[in-house]
Amino acid sequence: MTVTQSAPAVRTQPGPTDNQAVLIVHGKDRTGIVAAISAVLGKHDANIVSLDQYSDNPHGGAFFQRTVFALDHLKARLPQVELDLQAKLAEGFELEYTLRDLSVPKRVAIFASKDDHCLLDLLWRHRRGELPINVSMVISNHPDTANEVRFFGVPFFHVPSAGPDKSAAEAQHLQLLRGNVDFIVLARYMQILSGDFIGRVGVPIINIHHSFLPSFIGAGPYAKAKQRGVKLVGATAHYVTEDLDEGPIIEQDVIRVSHADTVADLQRRGADVERAVLSRAVRWHSEDRVIRHENHTIVFAG
Amino acid sequence: MTVTQSAPAVRTQPGPTDNQAVLIVHGKDRTGIVAAISAVLGKHDANIVSLDQYSDNPHGGAFFQRTVFALDHLKARLPQVELDLQAKLAEGFELEYTLRDLSVPKRVAIFASKDDHCLLDLLWRHRRGELPINVSMVISNHPDTANEVRFFGVPFFHVPSAGPDKSAAEAQHLQLLRGNVDFIVLARYMQILSGDFIGRVGVPIINIHHSFLPSFIGAGPYAKAKQRGVKLVGATAHYVTEDLDEGPIIEQDVIRVSHADTVADLQRRGADVERAVLSRAVRWHSEDRVIRHENHTIVFAG
Amino acid sequence: MTVTQSAPAVRTQPGPTDNQAVLIVHGKDRTGIVAAISAVLGKHDANIVSLDQYSDNPHGGAFFQRTVFALDHLKARLPQVELDLQAKLAEGFELEYTLRDLSVPKRVAIFASKDDHCLLDLLWRHRRGELPINVSMVISNHPDTANEVRFFGVPFFHVPSAGPDKSAAEAQHLQLLRGNVDFIVLARYMQILSGDFIGRVGVPIINIHHSFLPSFIGAGPYAKAKQRGVKLVGATAHYVTEDLDEGPIIEQDVIRVSHADTVADLQRRGADVERAVLSRAVRWHSEDRVIRHENHTIVFAG
Amino acid sequence: MTVTQSAPAVRTQPGPTDNQAVLIVHGKDRTGIVAAISAVLGKHDANIVSLDQYSDNPHGGAFFQRTVFALDHLKARLPQVELDLQAKLAEGFELEYTLRDLSVPKRVAIFASKDDHCLLDLLWRHRRGELPINVSMVISNHPDTANEVRFFGVPFFHVPSAGPDKSAAEAQHLQLLRGNVDFIVLARYMQILSGDFIGRVGVPIINIHHSFLPSFIGAGPYAKAKQRGVKLVGATAHYVTEDLDEGPIIEQDVIRVSHADTVADLQRRGADVERAVLSRAVRWHSEDRVIRHENHTIVFAG
Repeated sequence: MTVTQSAPAVRTQPGPTDNQAVLIVHGKDRTGIVAAISAVLGKHDANIVSLDQYSDNPHGGAFFQRTVFALDHLKARLPQVELDLQAKLAEGFELEYTLRDLSVPKRVAIFASKDDHCLLDLLWRHRRGELPINVSMVISNHPDTANEVRFFGVPFFHVPSAGPDKSAAEAQHLQLLRGNVDFIVLARYMQILSGDFIGRVGVPIINIHHSFLPSFIGAGPYAKAKQRGVKLVGATAHYVTEDLDEGPIIEQDVIRVSHADTVADLQRRGADVERAVLSRAVRWHSEDRVIRHENHTIVFAG
Repeated sequence: MTVTQSAPAVRTQPGPTDNQAVLIVHGKDRTGIVAAISAVLGKHDANIVSLDQYSDNPHGGAFFQRTVFALDHLKARLPQVELDLQAKLAEGFELEYTLRDLSVPKRVAIFASKDDHCLLDLLWRHRRGELPINVSMVISNHPDTANEVRFFGVPFFHVPSAGPDKSAAEAQHLQLLRGNVDFIVLARYMQILSGDFIGRVGVPIINIHHSFLPSFIGAGPYAKAKQRGVKLVGATAHYVTEDLDEGPIIEQDVIRVSHADTVADLQRRGADVERAVLSRAVRWHSEDRVIRHENHTIVFAG
Repeated sequence: MTVTQSAPAVRTQPGPTDNQAVLIVHGKDRTGIVAAISAVLGKHDANIVSLDQYSDNPHGGAFFQRTVFALDHLKARLPQVELDLQAKLAEGFELEYTLRDLSVPKRVAIFASKDDHCLLDLLWRHRRGELPINVSMVISNHPDTANEVRFFGVPFFHVPSAGPDKSAAEAQHLQLLRGNVDFIVLARYMQILSGDFIGRVGVPIINIHHSFLPSFIGAGPYAKAKQRGVKLVGATAHYVTEDLDEGPIIEQDVIRVSHADTVADLQRRGADVERAVLSRAVRWHSEDRVIRHENHTIVFAG
Repeated sequence: MTVTQSAPAVRTQPGPTDNQAVLIVHGKDRTGIVAAISAVLGKHDANIVSLDQYSDNPHGGAFFQRTVFALDHLKARLPQVELDLQAKLAEGFELEYTLRDLSVPKRVAIFASKDDHCLLDLLWRHRRGELPINVSMVISNHPDTANEVRFFGVPFFHVPSAGPDKSAAEAQHLQLLRGNVDFIVLARYMQILSGDFIGRVGVPIINIHHSFLPSFIGAGPYAKAKQRGVKLVGATAHYVTEDLDEGPIIEQDVIRVSHADTVADLQRRGADVERAVLSRAVRWHSEDRVIRHENHTIVFAG
């Protein structure tokens, strides 16, 4: 008899998010937005669980609101809430919204290369119940982490990506991803995505860069940090845009280093920051706590 | 001719808080609170500048909301807003509220002893325009800081407090304070206030304790920290209650120390944390960002 | 054919510590210790790679020195270095020393229970080459983590420990450990070790306590932290003594929390601090960077 | 009678540094340096109080050692120690050294402009006895802080510096500084020093830059930080070289900010980091804890 080795299943959390939905509204600020939204929710006897609001200028600036509300029999009643919301927002507000059932986790594909610290940290945290996501697959240009990923019960796809022409690899990526994921995480994926791929894949992509941006853009940031003699090294999670390392920053953190740290020491210390920063960014994105606005993010951290 | 030496006056800030008011509501959570409040504000065309909300349990727990709103001609119109609010909250809500014109700074008395780092930091920050307060007076049981305080244009009163019987000193305190201050800050004041004084003075009192509470309650926390061999020392700002060092915590922070630090080193490093923590607590209290609830605080930090 | 699932082997590090030894000297401070030691090393043409020194009082206090030196053909020549060192220290110095070949990793047993975050973090860091240890075994009073541990190629022993009488379990522990380990790590092991066991096992034991000691000693620290309303939660790695949570502190750290965090949130945030603090303590102990002195530690952190 | 208003004098510290000297040695690493130095000190019965050592490569790299030693009747005996040291280092070592009586504080000139937070923090820390320096003068291109500076008993010189040609102002600076100071601190001095001045003044110059370098070099770093949407802002203390903001970094730190912070908020939060970072850099420089090496610093922080 063969006993299949496997890690424990994801621990189910007795759903604090059952019957809860999240509503994101953003657009042009004007008087009465909060009142309008809460009137719609009040009409349905929805109870507001949390409400975060931000306006970059109360006089006609950009307005952002995140509202989590609880509603019995949510799944049955959400369509009517949405219709009422649409009707209310049509009354002269210049706002966009997204409305989402929080009990349905977002589906994610994680891209990785040889280095596994960010990848494994996400898989561990997910198994511990810390991340409200569904890991649909891991895609790597190296086979090294296959066993570890599958040990977590997650599909692993090896898509080699040698040479300057990434079009074949990216075509394979698109085939695997299309319809299957809500966002992508680059967990120290050491390949640059083409603008064409970013446009066609059509879902947000979160990258972890191993420096405190905008310091040390591009390759080899720890070597550059050693060269400059900085006293802290950091990491940055950001949305991927066509401009390398220039996308909207979601989260950053740093750790103290000294003259005695070698580049390898910086990498070791930095790795801890990278995985912590990336996991926060993934959690916040999964819970719709991050709103993109121009090249910035509004983060209602929890 | 004698030119009086004096520090520059407090820098006036072209009022971001003109025509703004802050409304704090807290009480029993139930559906519709946010909608009710924003409806009242909407009726007056008040624009919500920021809104923070927290419920410790959406099913009948305690509810807390802080709303800052802008309203043209605020001073003239605030009484009617309040009447409408009272009427609305009378519709079955079990809530208390406070409503305050943000352009009127809270008046504070600072109590100090010989050590001046927390005292001077508050006076400096106030002069820089960082603290929306009016420093009515400094009271000290030592004359040492008189010149420095008066250099900032702030009245200084020396009230000696020797011996176990503090009743004479406290009577003098009450005479100075009554009707003149909205809260009190103990900026490393090395005397214990009697329960009688706390009850009779009738305004909130903020203390800075020089340890990370609940570690090292009472006197000599840095010596105790050295004795225990901790690797971080900290400070705690809390509201004063009759139970020494047991009041609701507003803010805490820590700093790293090592085996090589003497007790004097811990004091030096800790002093930086003390003044930073106290200034944050004072700022948050001044802006009505702190709500007391049982022995806890809800802090909507900004 | 059965392909055995397994994680990659520990990555070998091209030995920066080959031909290096660490010398710890501590005792009564007096003039000439550094000169005496460096003279012995100089006689052997040993090159000092790093030297840390601390005296808690230059006038007859306690003296501590950690010296790492490089010496060609170290293994063959270390015995003679030690003999010369003994002769030199016999010249009136009141010092103890330990001398160790750094290329020989310390052997460790990790004790765990159900919670796996500290355990897995150590195994994973070890595999990455971050910890110069040899994980001899994992002992747990629960079978839950067996597969994960064995996936790392580490022996797992399940020793149940129900009921108040731990003597049978501890006898089994001693049988497994005797002669096999140089230190023990309690990676959130939820059983209290008897004084008898601590005495008989004869190797240092490192525990991670899930609070910032001396706050919240004993069970349920996160619930106590929530109850007190602290604004930071922390973790403490310390050597185990008979007095629960009173042993010498090796390392501590904290993370910011807010009123909105539930006890479960504190546990989640705290878990990150626990594993970071424990891994630093284990690394420093493994590299002989921690010297115990009375109820304190001298940590020459690297 | 006129009572002159003035702040208390600098508190005298019963000299922990009396009869102590600091020796800095740096140059090419080779076997036996530590032994040679400690032999010289041992010959004089000097007791080593602290010893820090670093080599960037034990095989012929650069070597750095900071030694503090105590010696009765230090002032009388230091010349002979120095002669013996010279003789010893002449035995084939390629090393430079500096030897300094720690009871003699370094003399500093502080340059400031309108913003006073870094300036006042240094003056206040100095008065508390935290900085082993002698503040010879404050030079400012604005008269605003004259009263505050003189209140501390420190000479204040107003040297206007309008227009692109700084040569007249710099000539005045040189006249004031020559022979009077051991180093210069730019405490948010908003003028660029010419390469000519830097060369002619002949003492180290420490600047505080209000960003986490190399991010946001040049003017307006907080506005640039807001523009980029970073989640932390920082400050950097560095030695001034002809290349603006490119000199060797002494110390850095950061503080968390959010999307809700305006540029003014970033300035307020950043100001706290600036003064903390600058005061650490000044203390370390004053105690000879910082060694410049190429474009880096070795910092033996205490």
